[in-house]
Amino acid sequence: MKISTLSIGDEVVFGEIVDTNAPHIAARLYDEGFKVRQHLCVGDSEPDIIEAVEAMAGHNDFVIATGGLGPTVDDLTARAVARATGRRLILNDEALAHLRERYRAMGRELLQASEKQALLPSKSSLIPNPVGTACGFIVPHKGCFLLFLPGVPVEMKRMLEETVIPFIIARSKRTVAVKTRVLRVFGLSEPQTEEALKGLSRPVEGLSIAYCVNFPEIEVKLRGEGEDEARLQDELLSLESQARGRLGDHVVSSGGETIDTVVSGLFRAKGLTLSLAESCTGGLIAKRITDLAGSSGYFLEGAVTYGNGAKIRQLQVPAELLEKEGAVSAAVAMAMARGVRSASGSDIGLAVTGIAGPDGGSEDKPVGTVFLALAGRSDCTAKRYRFNGSRDRIRAITAFTAMDWLRRHLMALPDKEAGEGQ
Amino acid sequence: MKISTLSIGDEVVFGEIVDTNAPHIAARLYDEGFKVRQHLCVGDSEPDIIEAVEAMAGHNDFVIATGGLGPTVDDLTARAVARATGRRLILNDEALAHLRERYRAMGRELLQASEKQALLPSKSSLIPNPVGTACGFIVPHKGCFLLFLPGVPVEMKRMLEETVIPFIIARSKRTVAVKTRVLRVFGLSEPQTEEALKGLSRPVEGLSIAYCVNFPEIEVKLRGEGEDEARLQDELLSLESQARGRLGDHVVSSGGETIDTVVSGLFRAKGLTLSLAESCTGGLIAKRITDLAGSSGYFLEGAVTYGNGAKIRQLQVPAELLEKEGAVSAAVAMAMARGVRSASGSDIGLAVTGIAGPDGGSEDKPVGTVFLALAGRSDCTAKRYRFNGSRDRIRAITAFTAMDWLRRHLMALPDKEAGEGQ
Repeated sequence: MKISTLSIGDEVVFGEIVDTNAPHIAARLYDEGFKVRQHLCVGDSEPDIIEAVEAMAGHNDFVIATGGLGPTVDDLTARAVARATGRRLILNDEALAHLRERYRAMGRELLQASEKQALLPSKSSLIPNPVGTACGFIVPHKGCFLLFLPGVPVEMKRMLEETVIPFIIARSKRTVAVKTRVLRVFGLSEPQTEEALKGLSRPVEGLSIAYCVNFPEIEVKLRGEGEDEARLQDELLSLESQARGRLGDHVVSSGGETIDTVVSGLFRAKGLTLSLAESCTGGLIAKRITDLAGSSGYFLEGAVTYGNGAKIRQLQVPAELLEKEGAVSAAVAMAMARGVRSASGSDIGLAVTGIAGPDGGSEDKPVGTVFLALAGRSDCTAKRYRFNGSRDRIRAITAFTAMDWLRRHLMALPDKEAGEGQ
Repeated sequence: MKISTLSIGDEVVFGEIVDTNAPHIAARLYDEGFKVRQHLCVGDSEPDIIEAVEAMAGHNDFVIATGGLGPTVDDLTARAVARATGRRLILNDEALAHLRERYRAMGRELLQASEKQALLPSKSSLIPNPVGTACGFIVPHKGCFLLFLPGVPVEMKRMLEETVIPFIIARSKRTVAVKTRVLRVFGLSEPQTEEALKGLSRPVEGLSIAYCVNFPEIEVKLRGEGEDEARLQDELLSLESQARGRLGDHVVSSGGETIDTVVSGLFRAKGLTLSLAESCTGGLIAKRITDLAGSSGYFLEGAVTYGNGAKIRQLQVPAELLEKEGAVSAAVAMAMARGVRSASGSDIGLAVTGIAGPDGGSEDKPVGTVFLALAGRSDCTAKRYRFNGSRDRIRAITAFTAMDWLRRHLMALPDKEAGEGQ
């Protein structure tokens, strides 16, 4: 089973946009047990499209192409495919009816020029597009199925799920199942993670471990291929459990969840509430938390206190403390965490103060110095960190570290019970 | 001049990561006046790499490849290239010296297994890597220069700038200059933007206009190609000025600046300060503002007031108003904007309250209903919006609309002068 993708478009080949279609298609096929062999990308040039189609048809069982199906003059895919496969370009009645219906539904008139979108190579089968004007189409050629989809990601994705993947599965002699589990690891470097899992790789024929840095996390990908799906599943779960045993609480999640959803789940499960006081992250942690629907159930409020005035007024940080210790200090981080917790009445108050750079560093507290503090009902702890890199990187790892502290803190806490002192 | 890129790696071909190297290389070459013809991507498979190298060498003047130069067993590029080009794999003294020096600088021991990174095809010239262990290399083959770089973006980018681009320029008979200007447009749809610029396209041979949706902005790309660089520059500037005339204040920027940097520049130029009160955006606007270095110069503080309690306490929104109008209302948005402005003492207070979804909508105020309010020294205005789409999309366009309001507001304001009432 040889499958490749072809992305068509000047904006992609000239690097104006990053092509996310090809990796999406490859990842979805991988989930279904198919490995994509290659991705090719060419511009909106008829000779280039023809050359690509001819070369790929000869070497693949399926080619999934995206792009160039729009109504404008630079959309050349259908014409080039007709040339490459020796077919005529004809007005496809079914595609035309679809086009008329879409325009009617949008309340717009179908101009004759726009009928171009229904001009397809003869003897194509249509790939319905439930969310846009451009129909996709399938052309068998030289023993290969060429499948063409629009480049608009939301349309491409629907058509991939509803038609393309079922089409490939129905025509494949798939005997090998492929399963993947991804462990997200935080707090270990890539070499440390590899070291911790040493000897676990390929413990059983068909299982493998791969590493991928997804800053600031390491993704550990456990993959299995085999004919017996149930056995494969067991082996993969056993490998996961061994890996978890070695990586301990550095494992943030294993089912694809982000640390943000893990933390959100913990807050809801334990019935606890949160407030935030952010200086150098400037709202980034609050943004991450409120990115998730349902965050209003546990997130009470955030204070973005960039200046000292705001720290004093909003968080009741004593002016003398700011004067004596400086805004970037453990004492001020703790005062901020306690302040926002007490003002909001939340169970947990988390505070961040630091120097994200590029300016503001000193010898004693260089750029990247960050203090985090976490205040609970009766306790408050601060930690000092020294992060490296650009402003973006320092802010990102600070926010991640804060989420990880919340995760660890909540995992060690008993669930809140009714009647417990609040 | 035919140039193509080749990305090598299982993680790329299986869609685990999105390849940003190929578009980066293509975009940088486009800036320099070279158009990339195609991108190919294959996995860590020796036969696939050999096939790709053979096919591409025959059809290109330059192939820029990335990936597969690391120290582990699945890094196969050098070996495959040696096979494909009929060379031996030899220990390159210069690469080995570099490797030793990098390990020494990191304080790590160079294991013999890691010396693999210095095994390169014979008669290669090195591409120095100032930021990592893997040297790149250049192999001439069948009249084509094959250039190999590591896949780590930060290393690839440095080596591209310092060696690859100068190498290509020195060997090219470049006679055509290419120039691009990108207008970022907000507040018009793609068809409205096209309609506004109707007739402007290709006003002069060699000039063209392309459109690209970069939600929620439309990017209008003005491109020019010609032999006379100075004349091209003039024509492009004249086209830009005509386009600006037609698009009016919908043009956010034209030199590649984001709306965030435009707003930041306006605040600094006018010497004004800002505070924020965010409900449904939950810190997203504060995050965008503080993403930029130097934001502490004008951004005083933000309040993320998810619950009514926080709105009352932090922003002095009257409880009766919340009761009577509801938290998502023009009156509450205005009270929030005035409240945060007065508490922080900033020149401008901006507030957002709305329903980002997926829950919380009603018939009267469906999901996507958002109120923005802007309070100045003596005035306060609120606007009601109705946005569509997912929670992420609603939050993103709300934040963008807020930034655009700040931009429009600041552009109409005179610069703050010393002595003016503050």
